[in-house]
Amino acid sequence: MSKVKVGVLGYGIIGQRLCDGVSLMGDMELVGVANRTPNLSIRALKERGMPYDLYMSDVQYADAFAQAGVPVCGTMEDLINKCDILLDATPAGVGAENKKLCEQLGKPCVFQGGEKDNVADVFFHGCANYEQGLGKQFLKLTSCNTTGLIRAVDCLDRECGGIDRVAITIIRRVSDPGDYHRGLTNALKIDKAPSHQALDLMTIMPHIEATGILVHTPVTHGHIITVTAEGKQKITKEMALEAFGKHDRIRVVRIADGFLGNASMFRYARDLGNNRSDMYEIGLWEESIVNHGDQIMFAIYIPQEAVTIPETLDAVRASLRMQSTMEEGTKKTNAYLEMGKWK
Amino acid sequence: MSKVKVGVLGYGIIGQRLCDGVSLMGDMELVGVANRTPNLSIRALKERGMPYDLYMSDVQYADAFAQAGVPVCGTMEDLINKCDILLDATPAGVGAENKKLCEQLGKPCVFQGGEKDNVADVFFHGCANYEQGLGKQFLKLTSCNTTGLIRAVDCLDRECGGIDRVAITIIRRVSDPGDYHRGLTNALKIDKAPSHQALDLMTIMPHIEATGILVHTPVTHGHIITVTAEGKQKITKEMALEAFGKHDRIRVVRIADGFLGNASMFRYARDLGNNRSDMYEIGLWEESIVNHGDQIMFAIYIPQEAVTIPETLDAVRASLRMQSTMEEGTKKTNAYLEMGKWK
Amino acid sequence: MSKVKVGVLGYGIIGQRLCDGVSLMGDMELVGVANRTPNLSIRALKERGMPYDLYMSDVQYADAFAQAGVPVCGTMEDLINKCDILLDATPAGVGAENKKLCEQLGKPCVFQGGEKDNVADVFFHGCANYEQGLGKQFLKLTSCNTTGLIRAVDCLDRECGGIDRVAITIIRRVSDPGDYHRGLTNALKIDKAPSHQALDLMTIMPHIEATGILVHTPVTHGHIITVTAEGKQKITKEMALEAFGKHDRIRVVRIADGFLGNASMFRYARDLGNNRSDMYEIGLWEESIVNHGDQIMFAIYIPQEAVTIPETLDAVRASLRMQSTMEEGTKKTNAYLEMGKWK
Amino acid sequence: MSKVKVGVLGYGIIGQRLCDGVSLMGDMELVGVANRTPNLSIRALKERGMPYDLYMSDVQYADAFAQAGVPVCGTMEDLINKCDILLDATPAGVGAENKKLCEQLGKPCVFQGGEKDNVADVFFHGCANYEQGLGKQFLKLTSCNTTGLIRAVDCLDRECGGIDRVAITIIRRVSDPGDYHRGLTNALKIDKAPSHQALDLMTIMPHIEATGILVHTPVTHGHIITVTAEGKQKITKEMALEAFGKHDRIRVVRIADGFLGNASMFRYARDLGNNRSDMYEIGLWEESIVNHGDQIMFAIYIPQEAVTIPETLDAVRASLRMQSTMEEGTKKTNAYLEMGKWK
Repeated sequence: MSKVKVGVLGYGIIGQRLCDGVSLMGDMELVGVANRTPNLSIRALKERGMPYDLYMSDVQYADAFAQAGVPVCGTMEDLINKCDILLDATPAGVGAENKKLCEQLGKPCVFQGGEKDNVADVFFHGCANYEQGLGKQFLKLTSCNTTGLIRAVDCLDRECGGIDRVAITIIRRVSDPGDYHRGLTNALKIDKAPSHQALDLMTIMPHIEATGILVHTPVTHGHIITVTAEGKQKITKEMALEAFGKHDRIRVVRIADGFLGNASMFRYARDLGNNRSDMYEIGLWEESIVNHGDQIMFAIYIPQEAVTIPETLDAVRASLRMQSTMEEGTKKTNAYLEMGKWK
Repeated sequence: MSKVKVGVLGYGIIGQRLCDGVSLMGDMELVGVANRTPNLSIRALKERGMPYDLYMSDVQYADAFAQAGVPVCGTMEDLINKCDILLDATPAGVGAENKKLCEQLGKPCVFQGGEKDNVADVFFHGCANYEQGLGKQFLKLTSCNTTGLIRAVDCLDRECGGIDRVAITIIRRVSDPGDYHRGLTNALKIDKAPSHQALDLMTIMPHIEATGILVHTPVTHGHIITVTAEGKQKITKEMALEAFGKHDRIRVVRIADGFLGNASMFRYARDLGNNRSDMYEIGLWEESIVNHGDQIMFAIYIPQEAVTIPETLDAVRASLRMQSTMEEGTKKTNAYLEMGKWK
Repeated sequence: MSKVKVGVLGYGIIGQRLCDGVSLMGDMELVGVANRTPNLSIRALKERGMPYDLYMSDVQYADAFAQAGVPVCGTMEDLINKCDILLDATPAGVGAENKKLCEQLGKPCVFQGGEKDNVADVFFHGCANYEQGLGKQFLKLTSCNTTGLIRAVDCLDRECGGIDRVAITIIRRVSDPGDYHRGLTNALKIDKAPSHQALDLMTIMPHIEATGILVHTPVTHGHIITVTAEGKQKITKEMALEAFGKHDRIRVVRIADGFLGNASMFRYARDLGNNRSDMYEIGLWEESIVNHGDQIMFAIYIPQEAVTIPETLDAVRASLRMQSTMEEGTKKTNAYLEMGKWK
Repeated sequence: MSKVKVGVLGYGIIGQRLCDGVSLMGDMELVGVANRTPNLSIRALKERGMPYDLYMSDVQYADAFAQAGVPVCGTMEDLINKCDILLDATPAGVGAENKKLCEQLGKPCVFQGGEKDNVADVFFHGCANYEQGLGKQFLKLTSCNTTGLIRAVDCLDRECGGIDRVAITIIRRVSDPGDYHRGLTNALKIDKAPSHQALDLMTIMPHIEATGILVHTPVTHGHIITVTAEGKQKITKEMALEAFGKHDRIRVVRIADGFLGNASMFRYARDLGNNRSDMYEIGLWEESIVNHGDQIMFAIYIPQEAVTIPETLDAVRASLRMQSTMEEGTKKTNAYLEMGKWK
C-alpha cells in the first residue's frame, strides 16, 4: 500500500515535531515543510543536511534563504499540490489563510490549537472524539494543555464508569526553551476564569461540566495541571491508578523515584536520548492522587512541545479514514511512536 | 491601663514584622528583640538607630555584635524576664528550646507555624478559633499559606451557611526576596499529596473535609491558592463576593484594574508606601470566582512575609485575655494595623 | 526664599520616585503629577489619600479617572503653567511631545534617559558634568546603568589621578518587580557590542575611552556591572576603596557581612524601612575589587528604580542655577535625601 | 589495533556524557559505568535497554538496584579491573577515594574539575597543555567554565601572537535543567574576586596574568563569559574572528542570525537533534567582539554539561600516549565527535 503523503506548514516548535512524528509513521511519507523565513530552526535543518525538503511560504524571502545557503524546493503551493494532507503549525491566524489555499487545491488540513475553532469542521482529540473526525477535510486540534488534560479525563471517563464534573488548576509554563519574544520574571500571572481549557474540554466532551483557573509561571519545561474529578460512581485511588497505568499515552511516575517536578520530566527525556529531548506522553504523579469525598484529585504533567503530536497524527488517520475507529487509529500512532513501549 | 510588654525572639523575615506589628498596637509595648548573630537585618536595625532594644540569644556571639558595632542590652533571658509575653520567630526547632526557658520563667509564648504542633497548647488562628486560645500559655500559629487560606474559608463558612469540603491547589513561592540559601531555577516541584495546609485546615476547622496539592514555583512575591469549596447550600459568586468584600483582612482586587498576579500585589504595596513593602491582607481576585455545580472556585494571594502578623497579634490578645471574643480581638488588631481602612 | 515649584510628568516607576524625591527637598515644592490613565500606581495614590495633586495628560481618559474615583485637578497644561520646572518621566518618545508644550509655555524640563539625546540641550550627570547644565532649559539624564556607572568612574577619575580607559560588563535586570509587559524566562540575552552605556559614558566624560558588553538576566532587583578601569597612574585596591568610601552616593558593602548579591541590596533597603524599599546609592562590593596589571576591576550594584533620582534633582539645581557648582548642588541634594548619613 | 577499554565512574550529568563521548570514539570501547544508586538517569538507562553495562559503586545499594529492576554486572572494582583507563565523574571528593582503588589496581584515571588539584599529577586541558599529560597516570580536567575559556584564550594566544593579560566576567548558570538540590530565584550572587577560573587559567597557561569576577544567575542553559584580552601585539576584530573561525571547538555565531543568548544555543542543539540536546563547542558571538585600545573584548557561551567531554577524551589520548601531540590528539577526538563538521 502506498504511503500517505504529508506536508507540514510552519517550522517552529510544533512544526519541527510534526515533521519528526510523520517521519516515524510507517504508513506516511513526509513530502516536505514550508516556512516563511530562514530562522534558527531552518539553519539547524541545513546543518543537518536537509533531511526534509523545504518550501517557501512567502517568495519575498527567496533572497534571505539564498543568503543563508538554504536550498529551497519550491513554493508552499507546490508542496500542497504534492501532498494528500497538510498539517498546519503556522502562527495563530496564518492557518486561516492557509486553509483558503487548501480549499482551492482540494486538500485536507489539520490545524493546531492556536487557530480559531471556525477554521475547522471539527474540534478534534484523537482519544476522545476520533470518530467525529472521520472523513472531515478540516480538523482542529486542542491546545497542548487541553490535549493532555483530555487524555487523563477521557481515560477515567472510559475506565471508571463516567465522569460528570471536573475542576482544574493549570500551572502553566510561560515560554519555551529558547524563547526571547515572551517571558515572565519573578511573577505569577492569573487569567480570568474559567480558563479556555475547561471550556474546550466541554466542547470535546459535552457530557462533562468543567471549570478552572490558570496561572502562568516563569518556567519553560511544561505545565502541571491539578484535576479534581467527580465520577458517576466513586473512583478510588486504586481504580484511577489502574486506569492511568494501562493508557499508552500516560506515564505514571513517582516522586519517590526522583520525578520531583516538570524539570525532572524534561531531564528524563534527555537521559532517554529522545529526539530533541521530547516526550509524547503526559506524566501523572502517583503520590498526587488523593480522594476527596466522592471526588478524586491528581496532578498531571504536560510536555507542551510534543504532547499534541500523537493526536495530530490521529487526525490524519481519521481525516483520511486510514483507520475507522479510535482504537485502531490511536493504536497505529502509538505503535509507530513507540508509546507505551517503556512499560 | 498599662500596655502589655511584648518581646520578640528571632529577627528574621517574620521577627522583624512582628516587631513592626507590635509597635503599631496602641495597647502593647515592644520591649525588644533577641537574635543570635548580627545578620543583615540587625545591621539595618543599627543603621536605623536602634529603634528597638536588642538582646543576645547566644552569648557566644557577643564579640560578633561588638565588632559590628551593634549595641546589645542583655541576654534573651533578660528580655523574657522583662516581658508579659513572647513571640517566637526563630528557625524551626529553636522555638521548642525557647519554650523551656519561657516555662522556667513562667511566661506565655506564641510560636510560628514552623514549630511542631506539640510545642503548644493550642493550634491557633485568630479568625477561626480565637476562643480556644483564651488564657493558654503556649499557642502556635498556622503557617503563612494556612493562615491566609483559613481566612477565606472561615469567611465563607460564617457568612454563607457553612462549608463542608475544600480542595486546594497551592502555587507556592519558593523563597523570599533576598534569600540565597534556597531557591529553584526554571522548575516546578510537586509535593506528596495531601498538602499539610489541607491537613492543618482540618485541625483548626474539624467540621471541614479538606485535601490539596502543592506545587513550588520559582518566584518570591507570594503564593496563589486556588480553592474549590462545597457549602452546605449553594454559594453563588455574588454571595461569595459580598462575604469577602466585608472582611477586613481580605482585599478583593480585579485583574481589570491591573492586579495581574502576585507581583502586582507586591508592587501595589510598594506604591502604597507600606513599611517594608508589606501587605497584611490576603488578595482575592474577583474574576477568579466561578461556580462549578454546587461548588465555588476562586483564587487568593498570600503575602508570605506579613500575612501571619495579624493572627499572631490576635494570639497575644487571646492568651492574655485582653479581649474575650474573636470579634473584639480581631477588631482591635485590625484597627491598630489599619486593616480595612482602604475600603 | 520661596521654594522652586516642580511638576512631574508621568507616574510610572520613575515618576513616582521623582515625586518622592522632590517632596524631600527642603527648597522645592511638588505642585503635582500628570498621568494619562488611572493605572495601579494612581490607584495606590488614591488609597493613600492623594498626597499630591493629579493632572490629566490626556483628557480622553477623564471618564476613566472618574470611574476609578480619582480626583483630578486639571490638565497637564495647567500643571506646567503652575510650575517653575518640569521633570518628565513619561514613556520613551512621549517626552519629545511634552517638550513642545514646555517650549510653548516657556518652562524648563528635565528628561530621563529613555528619550533621544536631541530632546535636550545637554546630556547631564549631576556628579560628572553639573556645570554644563547651568541655566540650560532642556536637560536629559543618563539611563539608570549609566548614571550609576559614571558615579563610580567619576569618583576614581577625580580622586585617583584620572581614568583613561574603561571596559564594562553589564549584567542587567530585565524587568522591574510587578512588570508583566516584559520578561525573560531561563534565558540570558546578549546585545550587540559596544553597549550604549559605554558610548554614553564617553559622551559625558569625553576624555575616557570606553567599551562594553551587556547581558540581560531574568531578575528584577537591580543590575550588576563589572568595571575594568585603567588610570593615568596605577590605582591600588586601597586607593580605590578610600575614594569610594568617601562618596556619599556610593555604598561600599561586604559579602562577608551578608551582601551576597543584588537581592541582598533590595532586602537591606526593605529592612531599613526605606520608602518603597528604594535605595538611592549604588553598591560597591569590597571583595570584588582586584588589581589586574595596571588596571583595577570591581563590581557595582545599580538600583534601577531610584538611582537616577539624585542626579535628576541635581539637574533642577543646575538648570535653575539654584547652586552654581557640582559640589554645592550635589551636597544639597544629598543632604535632603540623607545620602551618606549612614556612614 | 585493539580498542582502549574505558570505564566511567559516576552516572550523573557529566558521567552520562562521558559514556556518550567514549561510545563515539572509534578507537575506544566503553566497558561500562559504575554508579551508587538507581537514580533517575539509571532508570532511563534501564528504559533504553541497558546499552552500557552497569556496575555498583557501593554494594549496600544492591537491593535498591534489584527493586528498580536494573541489572548489575558487578562491583566498581570489577569494572576497574576490566578497563585500561577510568574516567571519574563522581561528586566532588569521591574521586579522591576512587583514586586509591585505581592506584591499588594500577589503572590510570582522569578526574573532573570538582576534585582537588592534588588528586592528579597534572591539571590538564586538551588544547593548552596536552603534552604535559603524556603518560601521566592521574590527570584532572579544568572545570566547565575554565575549559571553555581556555579554548578561546589559547586560540588567540596561538594564532594572534601571544596573550599577556586577561580579565573575565563570568555570568554563570546556577543549576542544570532538572536540578532540584540547588537553585537561585530572582537573584544574582557575586563571589569573592578573583574567580577560581582566572586562577586556574594561570595554572594551565602560566605566561598569562588573569583575574575576574563571577556572578551567578538564575538560569540553567549555560554560562556567558566576557573576556578582555591584551595581546603582545594589537589583535583586531578581524584577526580574532579569523582565528576563532578556524577552531573546531569554537562555534562563531551571530545575533543577527537569531543566536540571541544562551537559550538560543540550547535550542539550536535541540533543533540539530543532538544527543541529549548537547553541544560540545563553545559559542562565540561575532557581534560581541570589540576593540578597546590595544585590547580585544568578546563574549563566549559555555554549554556546561558537555563542554569538558572533548578535553576529557583528549586526556585519555595523552595519558595512554595514543597520540603524542596536541594536534594529533585533539584531531582524533574532534573527528569522532564530528566537531567542526558543520563549517
